[in-house]
Amino acid sequence: MADAPKANAVVGQSGGPTGVINASLVGVIEEAKKHPEIQNLYGAIHAVAGMVNDDFIDLKKLSADTLEVVAASPSSAIATSRDKPDEEYCAKILEVFKKRNIRYFFYIGGNDSANTAHILNTMADEANFDIRSFHIPKTVDNDLLVTDHCPGYGTAAKFVACALMGDDLDNRALPGVKIDVIMGRHAGFLTAATVLGKQRDDDGPHLVYVPERPVSMEKFLADVDAVCKKLNRCVITVSEGICDNDGVTWAQKLAEQAETDAHGNVQLSGTGALADFLAGQVKENLGVKRVRADTFGYLQRSFPGIQSPVDVAEARWCGRHAVQFAMKEDNGSVAIKRLGNGPDYKVELFRTELCNVAEKTKSMPDEFMNAEGNGVTDAFIEYAIPLVGDLPKTEFLGGYPRV
Amino acid sequence: MADAPKANAVVGQSGGPTGVINASLVGVIEEAKKHPEIQNLYGAIHAVAGMVNDDFIDLKKLSADTLEVVAASPSSAIATSRDKPDEEYCAKILEVFKKRNIRYFFYIGGNDSANTAHILNTMADEANFDIRSFHIPKTVDNDLLVTDHCPGYGTAAKFVACALMGDDLDNRALPGVKIDVIMGRHAGFLTAATVLGKQRDDDGPHLVYVPERPVSMEKFLADVDAVCKKLNRCVITVSEGICDNDGVTWAQKLAEQAETDAHGNVQLSGTGALADFLAGQVKENLGVKRVRADTFGYLQRSFPGIQSPVDVAEARWCGRHAVQFAMKEDNGSVAIKRLGNGPDYKVELFRTELCNVAEKTKSMPDEFMNAEGNGVTDAFIEYAIPLVGDLPKTEFLGGYPRV
Repeated sequence: MADAPKANAVVGQSGGPTGVINASLVGVIEEAKKHPEIQNLYGAIHAVAGMVNDDFIDLKKLSADTLEVVAASPSSAIATSRDKPDEEYCAKILEVFKKRNIRYFFYIGGNDSANTAHILNTMADEANFDIRSFHIPKTVDNDLLVTDHCPGYGTAAKFVACALMGDDLDNRALPGVKIDVIMGRHAGFLTAATVLGKQRDDDGPHLVYVPERPVSMEKFLADVDAVCKKLNRCVITVSEGICDNDGVTWAQKLAEQAETDAHGNVQLSGTGALADFLAGQVKENLGVKRVRADTFGYLQRSFPGIQSPVDVAEARWCGRHAVQFAMKEDNGSVAIKRLGNGPDYKVELFRTELCNVAEKTKSMPDEFMNAEGNGVTDAFIEYAIPLVGDLPKTEFLGGYPRV
Repeated sequence: MADAPKANAVVGQSGGPTGVINASLVGVIEEAKKHPEIQNLYGAIHAVAGMVNDDFIDLKKLSADTLEVVAASPSSAIATSRDKPDEEYCAKILEVFKKRNIRYFFYIGGNDSANTAHILNTMADEANFDIRSFHIPKTVDNDLLVTDHCPGYGTAAKFVACALMGDDLDNRALPGVKIDVIMGRHAGFLTAATVLGKQRDDDGPHLVYVPERPVSMEKFLADVDAVCKKLNRCVITVSEGICDNDGVTWAQKLAEQAETDAHGNVQLSGTGALADFLAGQVKENLGVKRVRADTFGYLQRSFPGIQSPVDVAEARWCGRHAVQFAMKEDNGSVAIKRLGNGPDYKVELFRTELCNVAEKTKSMPDEFMNAEGNGVTDAFIEYAIPLVGDLPKTEFLGGYPRV
């Protein structure tokens, strides 16, 4: 491997914001400052769009105080994009890279971002313009391959776990059926995390539906009915991507005039249609009087002030490691390996090939879901609990002995 | 005034849960323990329903540790009810009170709860069964008369302020129009609080609509269009109870099959219909490509772990004062008077007549809303800021100078 070039670097944040993607950005910045091989570090505004449009800020100029506020802020501090660059788009980026002598590319995002890093690296090689191209994992969905888990997941998981703790207490106070729709098109990890705050045997959510397990309306209603008969209430969490037995998502069935984004995905977030539909089904078919439904929407990924300490530390560490890897290697994606669990939770970071991560998605493993397809297992809880950190303790007195 | 009777006491939590209604409950418990006049302190499970059904727990038995967890927990720890007792209902309650020698009645809730306390007190007087009847204010809507503000408001206000800080950063990262529907049927205080985390001049929410100011669809769309032309994005918060110029709520216009609760209110929370309708209007009429809408739902009142320190302290204090007042007076509602503001924020508590609070609602004063009817004033911010406590600091770098 050749020595690391003395050149400029660019970093971008791609796809949906998370609660810790800015911590990864700060990790890149603080590590880049340590390596004289990296001259200027440019932040690309709106990700690849900024790289095409030559729209950059100077990240090395930021003060240490500013960096700490950035690392604690949700969303994407240098703005993001859902553009999915093809070869033509990448060719334009490479022109800007040549003009600015950018030879380091750091891209924080999901599997599409790993793919962009891969395409750019390959095209640059072919043009004999060597760039070092690294992907830093980020997603609230936790759906990237190779890595044990994704930065961004722990904080979003903490939010939904807290939300369900409160929502379940609310449902105890005013019983009925409550349905909460959680982000997750293809992977159910975030919806599964809604159970992580359960303290009492009869705490909700009582039913959890993920995209990996199709469920018919008949089965769904029978499940809800059984819980209501037992507890006189039922709290349910549902991934936005759950589908019927025929594999078609319920959202898709609803969405005649569905808006689609540039990736060909049906819009699932930012609308309450699925939640309202499910509530209507319960009301009509089970005769439950009080049925409510909430769609958590963007709060899941953007609520400030509740980062998971483990998640934010790992996100920052991933950013730093990407720069370290770039000093020695041509390309790669940063991944997390779990070395110990429970009280001995410990991870190390390693490099994997971009093509191992690009354009692929991970689903919940079978062992994380119960046989019924309406709940999670202890194996999932053991996997997820270390990622969210401490959750608030709560108390409900309604089950105390009567006098 | 006769001496306080040596008898049993009951406390109930009524109406929608909040983040600090349990702190008021704990205030009642800890103060009741200090007064030998109060023998047993019963917690009525599901509020008046528990009083009719003789369904009580013993609150004096709870340990100090348990009480602290209760005070920090959202929702209503002894469960709540939306029953609105009439005279017949109250007569049944009084039978149970006589049987159990309950002569102290503490009821934490909104204006309906003050009314229940008033009816019970009057009926008991007429039956020559003297009870001391006190209302402790609680509502996320902040819509009670007399009191400067309501316990429960500050914590809900903190939640929506934080939520909009994150949501605005998310909207900066992926620009478009974002509409957030906030609780508030008649009063706009909670929706107004969505501005409290604004740090930069162009931070959202850029438009704020409250029930006190009717707005036509034409005006709404013109407002959104103007912000989009200026900022290329727009974040909007809307009370669930906003109405058209004819005074009819937009939700009502949508809700053909609207479910109504026992108080004759149209269901506004727990459905995404209003948000989706507004998003559709913006998309169709303004041709904005990326329009998203979230309905915050029950998270606003039940999210754990983010109590406003001022709010939780005042809620507890109101509970304690209700018991203190009951040692000297026959009935009343606890109210908050603001003695100083800003860095000198300070309050005292006082007793007001139940009839001053019962069945009445307070709206946002004119001076809290701008002339355009689409935003709040500095006077509102000065009023509300002390109630929410510190908010997280955030940073967005997209406006930094380009290189």
